[in-house]
Amino acid sequence: MRAGSKILGALALLLAGAAHAEDGYRLWLRAAVATPAAATITLRGDTRTLALARHELAASLPAGANVTLATSADPAVAALKLPFAPLGDEGYLIRPVTLNGQPTVLVAGNSDRGALYGAFALLRHLATGGTLATATLTSAPKVKLRVLNHWDNLDETVERGYAGDSLWDWWTLLDRIDPRYTDYARANASIGINGTVLNNVNAKADSLTPRYIAKAAALADVFRPWGIKVYLSARFSAPIELGGLKTADPRDRQVAAWWKAKADEIYRAIPDFGGFLVKANSEGQPGPRDYGASHADGANMLAAAVKPHGGIVMWRAFVYADTDPSDRAKQAYTEFKPLDGTFADNVLVQVKNGAIDFQPREPFHPLFGAMPKTPLMMEFQITKEYLGFATHLAYLGPLFQETLASATGRGKETVATVVDGSSEGHRLTGMAGVANIGRDRDWSGSTFNQANWYVFGRMAWDPTLTAEPIAREWAQQTFGTDARVVDTAVTMMMGSREAVVDYTGPLGLAHLMATGHHYGPGPWVDDLKRPEWNPAYYHKADRQGIGFDRTKSGSDAIAQYASPIAKRLADPGTTPERELLWFHHVAWDRKMPSGRTLWEDLVAHYDRGVAYVGNMRSQWDGVRTLVDTERWQKTATYLAVQEREARWWRDASLTYWMSLNGRPLPASVAAPEHDLTWYKAVRFNYVPGHHD
Amino acid sequence: MRAGSKILGALALLLAGAAHAEDGYRLWLRAAVATPAAATITLRGDTRTLALARHELAASLPAGANVTLATSADPAVAALKLPFAPLGDEGYLIRPVTLNGQPTVLVAGNSDRGALYGAFALLRHLATGGTLATATLTSAPKVKLRVLNHWDNLDETVERGYAGDSLWDWWTLLDRIDPRYTDYARANASIGINGTVLNNVNAKADSLTPRYIAKAAALADVFRPWGIKVYLSARFSAPIELGGLKTADPRDRQVAAWWKAKADEIYRAIPDFGGFLVKANSEGQPGPRDYGASHADGANMLAAAVKPHGGIVMWRAFVYADTDPSDRAKQAYTEFKPLDGTFADNVLVQVKNGAIDFQPREPFHPLFGAMPKTPLMMEFQITKEYLGFATHLAYLGPLFQETLASATGRGKETVATVVDGSSEGHRLTGMAGVANIGRDRDWSGSTFNQANWYVFGRMAWDPTLTAEPIAREWAQQTFGTDARVVDTAVTMMMGSREAVVDYTGPLGLAHLMATGHHYGPGPWVDDLKRPEWNPAYYHKADRQGIGFDRTKSGSDAIAQYASPIAKRLADPGTTPERELLWFHHVAWDRKMPSGRTLWEDLVAHYDRGVAYVGNMRSQWDGVRTLVDTERWQKTATYLAVQEREARWWRDASLTYWMSLNGRPLPASVAAPEHDLTWYKAVRFNYVPGHHD
Repeated sequence: MRAGSKILGALALLLAGAAHAEDGYRLWLRAAVATPAAATITLRGDTRTLALARHELAASLPAGANVTLATSADPAVAALKLPFAPLGDEGYLIRPVTLNGQPTVLVAGNSDRGALYGAFALLRHLATGGTLATATLTSAPKVKLRVLNHWDNLDETVERGYAGDSLWDWWTLLDRIDPRYTDYARANASIGINGTVLNNVNAKADSLTPRYIAKAAALADVFRPWGIKVYLSARFSAPIELGGLKTADPRDRQVAAWWKAKADEIYRAIPDFGGFLVKANSEGQPGPRDYGASHADGANMLAAAVKPHGGIVMWRAFVYADTDPSDRAKQAYTEFKPLDGTFADNVLVQVKNGAIDFQPREPFHPLFGAMPKTPLMMEFQITKEYLGFATHLAYLGPLFQETLASATGRGKETVATVVDGSSEGHRLTGMAGVANIGRDRDWSGSTFNQANWYVFGRMAWDPTLTAEPIAREWAQQTFGTDARVVDTAVTMMMGSREAVVDYTGPLGLAHLMATGHHYGPGPWVDDLKRPEWNPAYYHKADRQGIGFDRTKSGSDAIAQYASPIAKRLADPGTTPERELLWFHHVAWDRKMPSGRTLWEDLVAHYDRGVAYVGNMRSQWDGVRTLVDTERWQKTATYLAVQEREARWWRDASLTYWMSLNGRPLPASVAAPEHDLTWYKAVRFNYVPGHHD
Repeated sequence: MRAGSKILGALALLLAGAAHAEDGYRLWLRAAVATPAAATITLRGDTRTLALARHELAASLPAGANVTLATSADPAVAALKLPFAPLGDEGYLIRPVTLNGQPTVLVAGNSDRGALYGAFALLRHLATGGTLATATLTSAPKVKLRVLNHWDNLDETVERGYAGDSLWDWWTLLDRIDPRYTDYARANASIGINGTVLNNVNAKADSLTPRYIAKAAALADVFRPWGIKVYLSARFSAPIELGGLKTADPRDRQVAAWWKAKADEIYRAIPDFGGFLVKANSEGQPGPRDYGASHADGANMLAAAVKPHGGIVMWRAFVYADTDPSDRAKQAYTEFKPLDGTFADNVLVQVKNGAIDFQPREPFHPLFGAMPKTPLMMEFQITKEYLGFATHLAYLGPLFQETLASATGRGKETVATVVDGSSEGHRLTGMAGVANIGRDRDWSGSTFNQANWYVFGRMAWDPTLTAEPIAREWAQQTFGTDARVVDTAVTMMMGSREAVVDYTGPLGLAHLMATGHHYGPGPWVDDLKRPEWNPAYYHKADRQGIGFDRTKSGSDAIAQYASPIAKRLADPGTTPERELLWFHHVAWDRKMPSGRTLWEDLVAHYDRGVAYVGNMRSQWDGVRTLVDTERWQKTATYLAVQEREARWWRDASLTYWMSLNGRPLPASVAAPEHDLTWYKAVRFNYVPGHHD
C-alpha cells in the first residue's frame, strides 16, 4: 500500500511537471496532459503494473481515444485469437479490435509487463508522428536480460560517473524512498530495461550485509511494478570478510555453503532477486584464480547458490594480469575460451564490446563467436569514461551498432546474433550497459547523454535496430516534433562519436588518454608501473611508424578471430582503415587509399574531428530560438568546451607524434597552439568519476 | 551581458516554478505571480541590483500596487528628506510617499543593495500577513559581514555536509554557470547574507591557483548583483606548496611577498574579493605556530596582503593541541586572549559559539568579552554535525539566541553586543554560519533544515532578533499562511533543539557521539589516541558521579569568564542546570531542584527528549492534508527516523551510565531495548559528511 501511494505521488509530480521550465529532468518522457479524463482507458486486469500503464496513457492520449490494456489471460482478449504466442513473457501487441462490441485499441501482452511496454510503445508511436489509427504494432524483446550496471559505491560516489553522486541514497534508504527512484524505474521501463545492478563491480562486501540487503530490497519494491529486477555485484572474498572463513576458494564446501546461505537470505528479502554480477581476478579484485581455481569454478559455485531461486550469475571476462606479458588484448580470450562448455546453465559470461576497455573505437571482442556453448552477455559503457565525460557530445548509437553488426566470420553470425542467442539457440541472453545516471537534475550530465541511456535500452530490446532511427525518435520525444530541431539534433548526433574518434585516436589508435582520470590526451605517458597502463604500449610509435602489430609478426592477436576475419586482418591492405593501427604497425609514409601518406591522413582525421565539433556548434546555434533556454544553453556551453578540448587533443597528439617522427605538418594545416612541454605539463586534480 | 541574461533565465525558471509540485527547491521564496504586469513598479536608477529587486517585486506584488525602487542618491528621493543616514550602506526604508505628485510605496536605501534588501523585506511583510498600506519599515544590519562558510572540498564533497555534494561544480565551472548559483545568491540576499566562503577551512592550496581563482571569479560575477562577496579559505602553507618556498613563516619577507602577489592576482580577477578565512594550527592544519610565530603574526601578514584592496582576514580561534594537556575548553582562550590588541585593523578573530565544537548545547565561548580590542566574529554551525544530520529535526534559532543573549558578566555586555561591535565600538563586525547547503533538490537535506539557513541570515542581520518570530515568518513563507500549519511548525520547531539536547546530552553533557562520523551515541569510547577525542574525557562518569569539574578543584576553566559569571559557575547550586555537568562533577545522588536525584533527572531528560520527538510526529500527522505531499512525506519519514534514533541515543546512554553507576532505572521508566554490548557493536560505514 505504501509503495503504491508513493508511486502515484511520483507520477502526480511528473504530470504536474508538464508546466515546468525545462531542466532535463523529464528526459524523453515529456508528454503533457491537459485533461487526463479526455481519453477512455479500460483496464482488463487488476495489477499495479497495469495501473501504471494506464497512468502513462492517461497522461498523453488524445481526447476521444479509446484504449484497452489487458493480458492474453483475459477471456475476452483470448477469444480474439490474436498471435500472442510469439510475444513471450515481455512482448506486446497493439491493434484496433472490437471488444465486447466496442471498438478499442488493444494494448496487450502475455504479462502485464508486456502491456506496460506496449503502453510506452504506443506513446512513442504517437510522439514520433504516428496516430492511433495507424497503431498496429508488435514487438518482443530479442534479449532476455537488459540490464544497467551502476558502478555506484556505497559512499554514494560513482566510479566513472559524470552526472553527480549515486541516485541511491544508501544513507537514508529503507526509511526514505525518494520519488526519484520511481522516476528512474519509469524511464527504464519506457525503453525496455528490465534489470539493474545497484553497486559497483569493484564491490564492497558490505553490500551483502543485512543492512544493505534491506536497502536493496526497498529499491526492488519500487522497481518491481515497472518490470525491473535488482541484481548485486558480489565481492568474491565476502566469505572471508563477512563470514570469517579462512578462504574464498570456490571448491571449499564452507565457502559454497556460505554463499548458499547468503543467497537464501537475499531471496527472503527480494523474492525476485536477479542474481550476481562478478568482477573477479581483474584489476586487483579477488577471485577464484587466487586459489588456483578457474573462473568457471567461481561462477558455477555462485550459480548453484542462486539456482534454486531462479537467479543467474553474470561473470565478467574483463581480465588481464600484471603477471601475463602477452598482449593485453589477448588475455580475456586466452583465459575464457578454454572454459567454454564448463559454465553452469544459469551463468552468462559478460564481455566488453572490445578487447581493451571501452575506447571510442575498438574492434569487436574476439570472444564473441568463440564460446558457442556459453551465453555471452554484451557489456557496453554508456557513461563516457573515454569519450569526454559529460561535457563532450558523443552519441553512442553508432558505436553500439558497429559492434553488434560485426560479422564474426562464422557463417552469417554477427555479434548481435551471438548476444541475442540466435546463433546457438541460447535462451539465456543479456546486454549490460554501464550506466551514465546520477543525481544531477538532468540524470546523465547533459541532454544529449540521455540519448545514450535511451539507445542502450532500445538496442538491448532489439540489437538489430539501427542508430539513426533511434536518434530520431529520441530527439522527437526529447525536443518535440519541430523538424528543424530534430533534424539538427540527429545530424549532430550521428557523426559525433566518429568525431571523438578522430580527435582522440583515429585509424585504430586507442588508449592515449591521461592517467587515472582518463580525461584529455596523454599519448606520451610511458612510465606507469604496469606496461599495459601506458599509452605508449598501445601506439608503439617511433621514428618510422605507429601502431600495434597484432599479426603473426607481432602479438598474433588476430589469430583469436575466426579465419575469414583473421585473414582479412593479417594484411594492412584489407584491414578496415578505421582499425588499421589497432592491428598493424605502419610506416608514417605508407600510401593510404586516399593517395596521401598515413601521416597526412592521420593529421586530416584530427582536423576533421575538430571541425566536426565546430560544425555542431554552428548547427546548435541555428536552433537557439527553437529549444527551451536551459537545455539549449547548457548544451551550447558544453559544445564550446568540446571544441576547445578537441583542439587540445589534436594539438597535443600531433605535437607528440611530430616529436617522434620528425615530420612537418602538411601545408595549410594549423600549427598546434603550444609545444609538447606545455601539453605534458597540463595536470588537474579533483576530476569527476575518479576517486584515488 | 552574458551574466545578465543568465540571471534573467534563472528568474524565469523560478517564476515558472510557481506551478510546480512542491519539492522544496523554492525554499521560503514561494510567491507566485499571476500577472507580472499587474503592479506598477518604478525603478529610479539603472543598476542590475535594482533590476533584480524589481523582478522580485513583480513576482509577488498584488495587482494595483504602486512601488518605487530607488536609492537616496536620486534627486527626487533625496528631496523627500527621509532619514537615510542611519541606514548605512545596506539598510532600507519602506514607506508610502508622494513622488512627482504620485502616491507610491518607496523602497529605498543608500545603495541599490539596500533597496534590494528592502524589496525582500516588503515581500516578507506581505507574505506574513502585512499589507502595502501598513508597509512602513526601516532596518539596517547590525553586523557588517554576514557570511556563510562552505566546508566544500574541491572534489565536490562537503565536509559535514548532509545535503548532497557541493553546489559548486568546480569541474565545469567557468564554462558552465549553473542557474542554481543564481538561485543560491537570491536566497541568501533575501535574508541579508552578504558573503560566502567558497571552500573548506581544511583548505587545499589548489584553491589559490589561477585555475581555481578563475572559477571563483565566475561565481563572484554571479553573486555580485545580489550584494554577495566571495571569500576563500587560505591554506597557510600555500607559499611552500604553490610558491616553492622553503617556509611559510609569516615573518619571512618572501612569504609575505608571495601572499601579497597572490592577493594582487586574486583582486585582478575579483575586484571586490572579500578576503581570507584561515584555520591555522588546528587539527593538523599548518600555521604560524609551526615557526614559533603567533596567530597574530600570521593573521597580520595576510591582512597586509589584502589591505590595499579593502580585504579582510577572518582568523579562526578554534585551536587545541595534542601537546597541551590542559582542558581542551580552555586552550583557545589561553592562546588568543594574550594577543588582544595585536591584530591588524582588518582582522577578525572568528570564534565558535562554544569552547568545544558545536555541541547541541555549549556555554558561550569565554573569549566573547575577553578580547575587547579585537573584533570577534561569531561562528555558528548551521549544518547539524552533532544534531542528527539532515534526518533529525532541530531548529537552531533557540541555540543561536541562547548564545547571543548570554551576558558576559561585563556590565550590560552580551555576546550579541560583542559580535555587533556595540560593546567596544568596533565597526568591523561579522557572523559566520557553517552552511548546510548542498546539491540536494531541497538544498538543505530537509525542509525544516532550510529554517536554519534562514534563521542564521536573519540573526546575522540583527543578533537581537529572537527565534520564535523568525520561525513563524519562515513557516509562513515556507508553508503558506494557514495558521494550523504555521502554528504546528512553530511549536514543533521551538522545542526541537532542546529535545536533541535531552536525548543526546542533557544537563550540560556533551561530546558523547560516535567516533569520526559523529552520528549516534558513543559515550563509552575511551581508546582514541588523543585524550580529548574521547567522550569519556568529557563526561568523566564513574560509580560516584558524572561531569567535568571546571572549577578551581578541576581545570578551572570557569576562571576564563568574567568574575560575576565565574562566581555563579563556581557553585553547582548557582550554575544553570542546563550547564551543570559541563562545569561540575556531580554525585549521581545529588538532590536537584526538582526534588529528584541527578540520576533520576538525567533519566527524565532522556525520556523527555524521546517523547518530544514522538509528539512532533503526532503534530505533523495532524497537518498531513494541509501540506503538499512530497514535503510532508519526507518530513514524516525523517521524524520516524528521529524517533527511532532518539530512543537509540537514550537507551545506549542509559545502559552505559548504568554500567558505571550500578543504579536501577526509576520505577515505571522503560528499560533499554538492548544491552550495552549490543549498542557498542553498532557500526556503520559510508556515513555522509565524513570522508576518511
